[in-house]
Order: sequence, then C-alpha cells, then structure tokens
Amino acid sequence: MRIDIQTTVNLLKEKDNILIICHESPDGDTTGSGFGLAHALRFLGKTVGVICSDEFPKNCKQISESMVFKPFKEEFVVAVDIADASLIGTTLADYRDKVDLCIDHHVSNKNFAKALLLDAKAAATAELMADVITGLGVPLSKNIANCLYTGISTDTGCFRYTNTTAHTHLTAAKLIEAGADHAEINRTMFETKSRSRVEIEKQVYNKLEYFFDQRCAMVCITNEMLEAVGITNEELEGITSLPRQIEGVEVGITIRERNDNSEYKISVRTNSYMNASTLCSKLGGGGHAKAAGCTVLGTLEEAKNQILAAVAEQI
Amino acid sequence: MRIDIQTTVNLLKEKDNILIICHESPDGDTTGSGFGLAHALRFLGKTVGVICSDEFPKNCKQISESMVFKPFKEEFVVAVDIADASLIGTTLADYRDKVDLCIDHHVSNKNFAKALLLDAKAAATAELMADVITGLGVPLSKNIANCLYTGISTDTGCFRYTNTTAHTHLTAAKLIEAGADHAEINRTMFETKSRSRVEIEKQVYNKLEYFFDQRCAMVCITNEMLEAVGITNEELEGITSLPRQIEGVEVGITIRERNDNSEYKISVRTNSYMNASTLCSKLGGGGHAKAAGCTVLGTLEEAKNQILAAVAEQI
Repeated sequence: MRIDIQTTVNLLKEKDNILIICHESPDGDTTGSGFGLAHALRFLGKTVGVICSDEFPKNCKQISESMVFKPFKEEFVVAVDIADASLIGTTLADYRDKVDLCIDHHVSNKNFAKALLLDAKAAATAELMADVITGLGVPLSKNIANCLYTGISTDTGCFRYTNTTAHTHLTAAKLIEAGADHAEINRTMFETKSRSRVEIEKQVYNKLEYFFDQRCAMVCITNEMLEAVGITNEELEGITSLPRQIEGVEVGITIRERNDNSEYKISVRTNSYMNASTLCSKLGGGGHAKAAGCTVLGTLEEAKNQILAAVAEQI
Repeated sequence: MRIDIQTTVNLLKEKDNILIICHESPDGDTTGSGFGLAHALRFLGKTVGVICSDEFPKNCKQISESMVFKPFKEEFVVAVDIADASLIGTTLADYRDKVDLCIDHHVSNKNFAKALLLDAKAAATAELMADVITGLGVPLSKNIANCLYTGISTDTGCFRYTNTTAHTHLTAAKLIEAGADHAEINRTMFETKSRSRVEIEKQVYNKLEYFFDQRCAMVCITNEMLEAVGITNEELEGITSLPRQIEGVEVGITIRERNDNSEYKISVRTNSYMNASTLCSKLGGGGHAKAAGCTVLGTLEEAKNQILAAVAEQI
C-alpha cells in the first residue's frame, strides 16, 4: 500500500522497538538513511537498531559507528532504500516478507512491504528521509545531518548527476545549516582512493585502446589484473565510466573477465548520440540509454570483436 | 571604496555602455560571472560587452559564445572575480587604473577599483552575482542560470570544497529552478578529460613513489614528460592533488621541472595533521595549511632529498 509522508510519520510515531534494514552491498544512501532515521527515532525515546546483511562501507564508518546495535525484540520493521525484497540479502532473508514499512526513491520499487513511502523524484532516499524526520518534529542534529548529507552526496555523485533537483539543493542547505561536515564527507567519499584503486586505474590507463577515430575507447580487465592488485568489488565501483570520460570519446567500453576465461561481462557507457541499450541488446543485454551491459561467451578476442562489430553499426 | 549590493545595483542601473573584464587565465567563475552580468544588463536594454586578456576556457565555450562582442565606446568598466589589478593581464593593462566597479569574493582583494562589492563568504563570485542580478530585478533566464551555475560549480569543485555554504546551495536551487543545465555543465567541467590529460595522469600513476611507510606519495613531472604528451597548463590543473588522494597518504608532493633542468617547483598537499605551509617555508616557500609550494635549485635528486628531509621532520 502506498502511503504519504504524513501517514508515514503517524505510523512511526505510534510504533516502538523498530528494526531498520539497509540493502545488501550497502552504499552511502542506504546507510545514511538508515542511521539518520534511527537517530531521529531514538531522539523520540524509541528503541531502535540498524542492520544489514553485509558490512557497512568503509567510507561510512563514522555513520555506522555512530550507533551501536544492541539486540532487542523488534515489533516494527522498516526497509530503507530497498527496491526489492531480495536486496535485503541472504543472511537476513527471514525478514523479506516481514517488512512493515519501506521508505525508498527507486522508481522500480516492487511494493513488497506492507506500507510503502516512495518518491521517485527524490535523488536519494536520504533526501526523502529529511522530510520524514522534519515531519516527525525532530530537529536536525549534526549526527542526523551527517547521515543524510552522506546519502544525498553518494546518490547524486556530489550533485553532479541529472537526478539532482532544486529540492536536493534545498535539503543540502538545511543539512549544512544543521552542521553537516560536508567537505570532510565529500573528501572521504570522493577524493580518497585506496592503493589498489590507484593500481587498477593505472592499469586501465595503460591498457586503453582506441577505435573508430578515437570515438570509442575500450579497456579489458582480466582476473589476473584484479588478483595482482588484490582489489575488492567496492573499490572497482565507477571504473566503467573512465573510458567515456575522455574528450572526443562517444562510447566507452569495459570488458571484464568472468570465471574461467570464457565469459566476459561488457559494460557500455555512451555520451550523447549513441544508445548503449540498443547496442547491448544486439548481444543479448540491455540497460539504459547511456549505460548498459551484456555478457558474451568465448575468448577475449571474440568478445572484443563482437562488441566492436555492434559499435561499428551505430557509430 | 567598499559598497553594498544595493549601491552596486543602483550604480549599474544608472550606467550604460558597460565593459566587463574577466581575469587572465580565465576560469569558470570569472567567465560565468562576467557573461551572467552581461546578459542581465542587456536585458535592461544596455550596451554591454565582456573581454579577457586570454582566450576563454574551452569548457566554457557555451557561455563565452552566448554573446558576441561588438566594439563600443565604454563609459563604465566592471572587473569580475579580479582580486588584483595585475590579474587584468598584460594585453588589457591600460584598464588597470580605469576600473569603476569590481565585484569579487577573494578575501585578498586589493581594493584597486573605484568601487568594490566584496563578499569573501561567497564561495564564488557567481554566487554573489546571483544576488546582484536579483537586485537588478532581472529574472534568471536559462542563459544567466547556466553562466552562474558554471561559476559556482567551478569554484566549489561541484559543492565539494569547504567554501560551500547553505547559501551556495540555496543559490544553486534557484539556478536549477531557472533551467540551468546542471548535469551537462558538470559533465563538461568535471567528467571530461583530454587525451593528453589522460596521458599525463597515466604517467603520474606510473611514476608515483612512496616514502615514510606510504604516508608520503611523490611524483616528479619533467619537461620531457610534458613535451611528449603535449599538454597545456589548463589541462595540468589539479594534477598536484592526485598524490594526496591516495588512502593513507598524509602528504602528497608534486615536483615539476622548470626551465633548464636546474630549478624545480614543489607543490605540497596535506590531508589532516601536517602543515604544508610550515613544511614549504623551510625551503623558502609558503602557502596555506593544506596546500603550499616552494622552488628549489639544483638537480632533481637534490630537490627530492631536500623536500623529503623537510617532510621527515614533521611526519
């Protein structure tokens, strides 16, 4: 059942012993929204806790360590930033059909909870959460502001992406007024690279190949490269957007080796006139207009040839 | 003479044939502020033009081409984002003592103009300009919004730096409401790298050296490297912050060869506990707490040893 902010506020006010669940492979938005709500509910005197099937991200430590989880018997379960029950993760699978309230901003939300507060126009769940917390009558503390700012900054790429709206900036203004350590958060989220991330970027740069008058840039990431560097999936995030960032490049392609050297995952990112989804659908994949993907079986050479043939038709 | 926004507005309203000057080596803020003001004044029916001693930046083309300069006899000269008359540049040196009004946000402003509107709390001159234009009673057109958003985004590193305030975000909200193509501007300003920039980043990564338990990262950029890549100064911007971005690194050092292989410019960037200015002052340089520089004579080996000796004392 879809509900509005006021109904959500009323619901939260009347409940206690509230368990908040973040999505698996957590990012800054689910973490910030979860702990932000938790701090607000604790301010109202309620017993509350935040859990996740995976470890919270390293760059959100300050947030996830801002409230220690003490076990309690939950009476009300809230999912934050979770579009689909399966994203609750395997270790928390028991909760998949027990979510009382879901607060989310994904247009693809499956409406799996008993009640759903969804605002697909919000750039981040944290943006929506700021309005929920204000509705609860809880003042924005520095702690809450740091949580919510982290969520918004994460999901907008620090206000760079198209999902950023005037309302996103108005919310950021309120959070900064409330004392959010915005510059420090952004430094942690966007300006710090692990040694292995630096290594993999170096290798990506060294292995870049150009095609079609340099309008296409491609890089192949092999398992050997990843093992040599010892990189985690979290650290690989965003690596697929590197080839597209080069001036004059319309289509950036990242080929990643899977399993036993006979399966390749191809990520395609385009800039203006090419449709990444159409391109990938030729190879059985799909996605969005500017970001899509597909999986190709065969050797690396075959994978490269197949995607380049598809590019040739469109470029 | 320091004046306030209302006096600035009155002054601009009564003048005509207004020449706007941007600072040499122009960036997004001086360009956006200059053209933003020009569009507003033209809306009021005034004759106006924007000039600069250097070419406007490539990534501000949309702005600088939004108004063609047609020569006219100027009666009132406005400098935007110019802290010191010398920054007007050599080709426009005749104007250095002829500036009627300067609109700026640099705390270091030398007060060289007949009238000065200075707000050192504004993250960008464009942020202050938004209030001037609103004061003029000019509605924020899409054109003006694009100019001012570019200025704010440039000077805040897209809302990442400490200079960003709640007022900065409130201004951004207004500009997005007015139709600023914010995502496209940010893509152009922050996500597009020239081929030569990619080349130099690759070389920087390949040549990174670590010292003091990896708490210090250093890179040397030689003239040979720069010539091989064929890079402009504009494209080199920000390269000195790369070593500091690596996790665990407290001090990032960039050594750049000058002239004839016997002079080295050293840029030092620190993260939390080290003072870059104190460090550089040991070698006759100076700057800010987190960003400072110095120049060292001798061989590259000597330059490295001198700066590492200075780091050893503090780290």
